[in-house]
Amino acid sequence: MKTMNLAGIYPPIVTPFLKDDVAHHYLAENVEKLSKSGIKGLIVLGSNGENVYLSEEEKIDVVKTTIQSASKNMLIIVGSGCESTRETIYLTNRMAKMGAHAALIVTPFYYGSKMNDEALIKYYSTVADQVEIPILLYNVPNFTGINLSVEALSALSKHPNIIGIKDSSGNVNQLGQYLNQVNPDFNVLVGTAGALFAALILGCKGGILALANILPKKCVEIFQLIQDDKIKEARELQLRMIPVNHAITAKYGISGLKYAMNLLGYKGGEVRSPLLATKYEEQEKIKEILMGAGIEIT
Amino acid sequence: MKTMNLAGIYPPIVTPFLKDDVAHHYLAENVEKLSKSGIKGLIVLGSNGENVYLSEEEKIDVVKTTIQSASKNMLIIVGSGCESTRETIYLTNRMAKMGAHAALIVTPFYYGSKMNDEALIKYYSTVADQVEIPILLYNVPNFTGINLSVEALSALSKHPNIIGIKDSSGNVNQLGQYLNQVNPDFNVLVGTAGALFAALILGCKGGILALANILPKKCVEIFQLIQDDKIKEARELQLRMIPVNHAITAKYGISGLKYAMNLLGYKGGEVRSPLLATKYEEQEKIKEILMGAGIEIT
Amino acid sequence: MKTMNLAGIYPPIVTPFLKDDVAHHYLAENVEKLSKSGIKGLIVLGSNGENVYLSEEEKIDVVKTTIQSASKNMLIIVGSGCESTRETIYLTNRMAKMGAHAALIVTPFYYGSKMNDEALIKYYSTVADQVEIPILLYNVPNFTGINLSVEALSALSKHPNIIGIKDSSGNVNQLGQYLNQVNPDFNVLVGTAGALFAALILGCKGGILALANILPKKCVEIFQLIQDDKIKEARELQLRMIPVNHAITAKYGISGLKYAMNLLGYKGGEVRSPLLATKYEEQEKIKEILMGAGIEIT
Amino acid sequence: MKTMNLAGIYPPIVTPFLKDDVAHHYLAENVEKLSKSGIKGLIVLGSNGENVYLSEEEKIDVVKTTIQSASKNMLIIVGSGCESTRETIYLTNRMAKMGAHAALIVTPFYYGSKMNDEALIKYYSTVADQVEIPILLYNVPNFTGINLSVEALSALSKHPNIIGIKDSSGNVNQLGQYLNQVNPDFNVLVGTAGALFAALILGCKGGILALANILPKKCVEIFQLIQDDKIKEARELQLRMIPVNHAITAKYGISGLKYAMNLLGYKGGEVRSPLLATKYEEQEKIKEILMGAGIEIT
Repeated sequence: MKTMNLAGIYPPIVTPFLKDDVAHHYLAENVEKLSKSGIKGLIVLGSNGENVYLSEEEKIDVVKTTIQSASKNMLIIVGSGCESTRETIYLTNRMAKMGAHAALIVTPFYYGSKMNDEALIKYYSTVADQVEIPILLYNVPNFTGINLSVEALSALSKHPNIIGIKDSSGNVNQLGQYLNQVNPDFNVLVGTAGALFAALILGCKGGILALANILPKKCVEIFQLIQDDKIKEARELQLRMIPVNHAITAKYGISGLKYAMNLLGYKGGEVRSPLLATKYEEQEKIKEILMGAGIEIT
Repeated sequence: MKTMNLAGIYPPIVTPFLKDDVAHHYLAENVEKLSKSGIKGLIVLGSNGENVYLSEEEKIDVVKTTIQSASKNMLIIVGSGCESTRETIYLTNRMAKMGAHAALIVTPFYYGSKMNDEALIKYYSTVADQVEIPILLYNVPNFTGINLSVEALSALSKHPNIIGIKDSSGNVNQLGQYLNQVNPDFNVLVGTAGALFAALILGCKGGILALANILPKKCVEIFQLIQDDKIKEARELQLRMIPVNHAITAKYGISGLKYAMNLLGYKGGEVRSPLLATKYEEQEKIKEILMGAGIEIT
Repeated sequence: MKTMNLAGIYPPIVTPFLKDDVAHHYLAENVEKLSKSGIKGLIVLGSNGENVYLSEEEKIDVVKTTIQSASKNMLIIVGSGCESTRETIYLTNRMAKMGAHAALIVTPFYYGSKMNDEALIKYYSTVADQVEIPILLYNVPNFTGINLSVEALSALSKHPNIIGIKDSSGNVNQLGQYLNQVNPDFNVLVGTAGALFAALILGCKGGILALANILPKKCVEIFQLIQDDKIKEARELQLRMIPVNHAITAKYGISGLKYAMNLLGYKGGEVRSPLLATKYEEQEKIKEILMGAGIEIT
Repeated sequence: MKTMNLAGIYPPIVTPFLKDDVAHHYLAENVEKLSKSGIKGLIVLGSNGENVYLSEEEKIDVVKTTIQSASKNMLIIVGSGCESTRETIYLTNRMAKMGAHAALIVTPFYYGSKMNDEALIKYYSTVADQVEIPILLYNVPNFTGINLSVEALSALSKHPNIIGIKDSSGNVNQLGQYLNQVNPDFNVLVGTAGALFAALILGCKGGILALANILPKKCVEIFQLIQDDKIKEARELQLRMIPVNHAITAKYGISGLKYAMNLLGYKGGEVRSPLLATKYEEQEKIKEILMGAGIEIT
């Protein structure tokens, strides 16, 4: 199983809502369009997919639409992590049967002080043993308050059904420590576009990037320039993308990302409550940032 | 609706598991026994109930067993908060129909940096408008990373269907600020037994206390002593309870609490994975702490 | 030495500046006036004294003026803690020779991750061994990022030259744990007026309170009411003081405190850079908060 | 003034102690040896120099010994930041007169919640206006709890006497945002060896690295390989250095660094209390980590 090579760029796709329901035609349209942009695959039901706001059946339906709408060459990776071991296994296997190729499993975190190395190693090992598709670990301290230690990653990377990690810590020092601990075929993916260039140069295989929802070709271009040893061009493009990425992640969040999608030919739809829609001033600021980076607004 | 007076002590009851399934006979036995201890009511599906590890149907069944096993005079308050507004409303109303008297709704927190005052006020107002039972806010920064501001509480306390708050911050300064902002009939409950005495003296109406799962009579005694102006006796008992409370919350967590329940005639059962069972040394330490506080082990 | 009883109220006095120099006549005037307000003593060179902005010679001069201006019955406690053990000992002894009665020694914190129990116990023990006046520990996580553990306090409280602790964590649960660990004559003082009432009821000996710089008599009144078992009156006064205390500490900081001093007949003087002076809107808000608490502005 | 180009590698040198006094002969020996290793200059009195444990006169003496012992081509940058604006200016100018070429000024942080953009911009502008040598900002959230915002850096980078920044956040995303905001001749230096390779590739001018106290030639080699576009070799060396760097910074701290210096032909001397000396097991672990990275121990 360990031979799955995830090298490339992945958007963690959004879940567009209309009147508080999943807008499946919007979702389908986005997936079709993204499939043609040079990306390697799609992450469904990640943090940007408002995963925590979806019921189990909605999650299943979102995965179904995504698989149906994606090109056949797209890798479909599902965010099937839940707080409990048993629910994570159940949901992952349900999605495996639907055709998902791999699962991205967030660190459980509600009882944060108890989620030590021992608990996390046991959790991920048990899940990996019992699911029918390979899994990736998902380290996202900003959302979870949990940071997966280098020691835990080192132990887990040896499991035959754990094929990689998405790290969204933005900590390039820790990325280096991770890379030092794993075999060359283990897929270390960076989870924030602001660190993409540095991470790839350092040896990461690719990136799962909110930015790839609106500018997939730019992300793929950074990836390709580095493959082609065009370091200066890659850096220049990375630096130009940083303010855009900041706007649609840390600063304006998912509603900012969805608004930017609308500006760039995708269908963002609405966010689900309690997330708030972008305000007018935020929209103007997002436009300004996009134009400042030389992005043409449709 | 505002006339519901919640003054008293409430255990946030645990969900006992056996072989990873809910052990309903254990749950029933605990509820029956607790009902006779002088408490005012029960919190079902709080953090100590491993709420985040239960499927929707399991939650429903846990509420059902609790309601069936509790004395008729017990107030049943359900932890029906979910991340999305719509699911919170749906689940709360489902439980209202089953006979729950009120709901304790945790601050949504996954997109923590976006859960500002505006978002939280809108969330709670919408929920309160659309559910059929009164609600209490639940502020638990240790688990959620979110602290409900004094300003947000002040605004929300005016809603006719928001009847109180459980505050587990342990910050007595903030409790005072909360108390300053609300009407005398608004139910400010403290969420940690270590602060019970101070909170009650300051004007809180009662407490929702993990400790009340193992020593409900001691908690009720502190409450009653303060009603009777026996301050010194209340303080002495509070100080004696502090190490016990620390052991079964911050230090050894839910598995420590369940082990202590077994020692004291209740049925803790197992925790659900990824929580880990107590280790032998932890069990010995818990025994020692209980005996140090003069608690007789059965 | 252990017989020093610190029961009572202490203002951690400010250092008034004029044109960036210490305004000793202002300082003297404040100290004289405070000495007549019923307080037990004065803290010189605490956090509110802008201790970290003073050179060694300025510190010495501030202590000198304070001792000269205070009534003979005032206990003078100096904030002589530095980052290094040797400088702390040196400065404490220099101030002891000037007539200081005790020293309040903050936890060293720059190398925070290395300031574990072992390091802190060794630090305080060494200092206590080598200084000529008794010392109090000073736990102020908000400023230092360090929280003195219950275990460390327990060990240190047995040292014959360590007579107490000022705890500014505001965590009443931890205060209870501290109280459980120490002998009855060990002076546990609370460091935030927002927790004064609760802390005293719980068994603390007194308080070191920024609020006592502007409203010493109100603080002393809370203290006295509790001595006299007038709990309801004490609580009512505590709740009324909370917004004032919040304004001159967390919200507007030392410049807010100094502005409030000016309004209430004291001489706040200026803050030293990089602290910023209060802005006009902040001044108006402070006035409003004082008046809202029924405080008469001179 | 803006023309000073700081491109290169700098060790933030340690202050060796013997029996609690500065061991100037050790210091001199280290500086002489480091001067021959290809580095661009030396940082005196940084965090690794136990700056906060030195009296003013000791600081002066350490700078004197360093300047006297360094090769003439070494840039001498002094850590002259204090909490107050006036003391920072005074100390910087005193060191300027001694021959320091530039000053590295840490963000003041004791009153952290008040050190907002406005306060920090005013602080640094005032200092830069009044000192006789150019200054660099120093952003080190791990020690200070303060993170210099992109907006503040953008404003400050325009000041003619502010020539750079040392960023120790390890956040490559933020480094990119910084680089986007400044002129090409502004010196953005990375403050942690674990991020050196990524930072240089991204456009940083150099690094101020604890690791350069023990392995200056390795650090210079990474720097040079990148200049020569030998990306793969640079990466390989970076990854090999990461565990060593981790050991002598986050994991074992300054006492670990000093022990490693002893192993590698430098004179670490003792740490000053309250820092604790390395324990035997820590020493064995450090040896093991060095050998694991292929470093020969003398």
